Amino acid sequence: MTPKGFIFSTVEASIKKPGHRDIGLIFSEVEANIAGVFTTNAVKAAPVLICMEKIKSGRGQAIIVNSGNANACTGKKGLKDADKIISAVAEQLDVKDSTVYICSTGVIGAPLPMKKILPAVKSLTQDIGRSSMDDVADAIMTTDTFPKIISKRLKIGGGYGLISGICKGAGMIAPNMATMLCFILTDIAVERKTLSTILKSSVKKSFNRITIDGDMSTNDTVLMLSNGLLGNEPITAESADFDKVLKAVDEITYGLSKMIVSDGEGATKLVEVFVRGAKNDSDAEKAAFAVSNSLLVKTAVYGCDANWGRIMAALGSSGVGFREEKTDISFNKIKAVKGGISNNRDEEATGVLKGKQIKITIDLHAGDSSAKVLTCDLTETYIRINAEYRT
Amino acid sequence: MTPKGFIFSTVEASIKKPGHRDIGLIFSEVEANIAGVFTTNAVKAAPVLICMEKIKSGRGQAIIVNSGNANACTGKKGLKDADKIISAVAEQLDVKDSTVYICSTGVIGAPLPMKKILPAVKSLTQDIGRSSMDDVADAIMTTDTFPKIISKRLKIGGGYGLISGICKGAGMIAPNMATMLCFILTDIAVERKTLSTILKSSVKKSFNRITIDGDMSTNDTVLMLSNGLLGNEPITAESADFDKVLKAVDEITYGLSKMIVSDGEGATKLVEVFVRGAKNDSDAEKAAFAVSNSLLVKTAVYGCDANWGRIMAALGSSGVGFREEKTDISFNKIKAVKGGISNNRDEEATGVLKGKQIKITIDLHAGDSSAKVLTCDLTETYIRINAEYRT
Repeated sequence: MTPKGFIFSTVEASIKKPGHRDIGLIFSEVEANIAGVFTTNAVKAAPVLICMEKIKSGRGQAIIVNSGNANACTGKKGLKDADKIISAVAEQLDVKDSTVYICSTGVIGAPLPMKKILPAVKSLTQDIGRSSMDDVADAIMTTDTFPKIISKRLKIGGGYGLISGICKGAGMIAPNMATMLCFILTDIAVERKTLSTILKSSVKKSFNRITIDGDMSTNDTVLMLSNGLLGNEPITAESADFDKVLKAVDEITYGLSKMIVSDGEGATKLVEVFVRGAKNDSDAEKAAFAVSNSLLVKTAVYGCDANWGRIMAALGSSGVGFREEKTDISFNKIKAVKGGISNNRDEEATGVLKGKQIKITIDLHAGDSSAKVLTCDLTETYIRINAEYRT
Repeated sequence: MTPKGFIFSTVEASIKKPGHRDIGLIFSEVEANIAGVFTTNAVKAAPVLICMEKIKSGRGQAIIVNSGNANACTGKKGLKDADKIISAVAEQLDVKDSTVYICSTGVIGAPLPMKKILPAVKSLTQDIGRSSMDDVADAIMTTDTFPKIISKRLKIGGGYGLISGICKGAGMIAPNMATMLCFILTDIAVERKTLSTILKSSVKKSFNRITIDGDMSTNDTVLMLSNGLLGNEPITAESADFDKVLKAVDEITYGLSKMIVSDGEGATKLVEVFVRGAKNDSDAEKAAFAVSNSLLVKTAVYGCDANWGRIMAALGSSGVGFREEKTDISFNKIKAVKGGISNNRDEEATGVLKGKQIKITIDLHAGDSSAKVLTCDLTETYIRINAEYRT
């Protein structure tokens, strides 16, 4: 199932190792409203700089995405190359340059192999409609081990609309999204500013609350297209169906976030770090990220060791306000720490850590704020992937 | 060679796996001046809390140190246990309680095995003088692979004084020292406040500028004892020999820091990250730590891959003020990045990374400040050690 009016193509341009499609094209048969969220890294890839400019118009019709090369730290040439690709797509699809968006992911610092890409664009536009949304999800993978796609069907007015999201993640996933590309398509008409409001709100609660290794990418991009082909009255913040759409986008982005973390490079376990009883929201988030990003916590989880002392140490160095002697820590339902000291349940807690999904709950008893961060364990495989990624 | 008047003993109390001495005792035959620097982690181990209180008097005569158990997150019982050990040492050595210091390193959250420790204290005090300073360096190791000791001989007035430092490190080494214990002993008389000034200044430039995994310990402690047995006029900030002593302590702490990083858990390479041209000191330090703590940078170094894009990404997410297009990055003398883009010397740079000691120089061209941080690569062995540390 795909939202009405969206068609796709994919191609193998040999940017990466041969044997894998590495460019995808998403096309809406009619011009659509578009919203976007981008990396907050000060070093932004050329395609990110270009999309940030284009998104101001709020209109879009095509997205071309390549993996294997990030087109980051490529200077003016990087911008020119991206513009050339956009022009080629626009010309061949007979749409306005301003409605074509571009995203890249992969190695930083190498120029795009334009001699491979420009001919590939030709076959992409010729073959438009021959691939599925799943194929695009597959083509944008880098070190992902599986394509990530989630769809939601919604009753809007008299008909049924569809919202579908695909994404890639795997490495460099950190506080603010990381090398993460996500495309959400819907045939439900959503008013321009409302689309942006919904997307930003959902990203805040999902992609911005996951971490794999604490690094933030130069290329993170989330784009959402609404082409309105369902024919409904455009959704605004005042619409009866606003909450329904927001909830669906929340579920899609949160679901995709969970998939990204489960598929974190080398990850064997999905860990939800839930901090409650924090003084304020900022403290709750800071504490949850400090624990989620601690290498010692992540390796202990990998080793199935309920080594809560490392969690206490991470909390202590996070800079948040709390008192050691008031802190409780649980692994799933096993309260291993009560009032800052051992509750003598380490063995049961270690049993919990043998599972694939673990919830670590930390109660600081310092206030009423809470935050949840998704992370994964850190394994030898992460090291291997990242020591060998480029060579 | 050992500074005059310092004697030692070590014992195997089976706190850790059998076959390894795990408690050391340092004793000065006369009461000495003492200075200390402690972890800034909000969660502080019992021995740290006790030493921080005692150090106010500026006087000390004995230090007892155990490995295998951190006595952290152990509540009131932890404080009582530490006090009991101190009292036993003081009584058996016939010195004041207030001059006996205690340090612990190892697993967090488990109570000290007092039934093993108290009898061990007895043999420690009986055997005082039977071990060397090297033996103590050996007894305080946890996952260190070699004992760490550096001595400097200094001409002070008419005689020769000695300053000797030992330390342990290996894991959890981060911005502010980490599970790092360091003891510096000297027979040179140094006035109390001057001793503290010297130690703080040296620690700032050495132990606080190293990072292995970004985690900060609950137990970090650096203690320096000056017993004055050389018989010199006590050194003050106004003494002709002040600079000489400061320089020697700088060299000892920096040398020990280098040893700690070289012996970082699983490390195969020592990396010096030097940031210059930063707007101010804080930016320089922040940028150097961001690069030093990036898992992607550390794994690339391990893989001998001059993947400077990951360095740019780490700089970009560090929050420091700089412009991508002005940034230069060199690996030893090979400038791989000039003006933010590839200088087409990646192959030579990769050659540099095959060495054991690498200097990464980052010039932000944004100002006149600089900072240097020592770090190491991140390997499968780090994961293995930390996944299996407690179990």
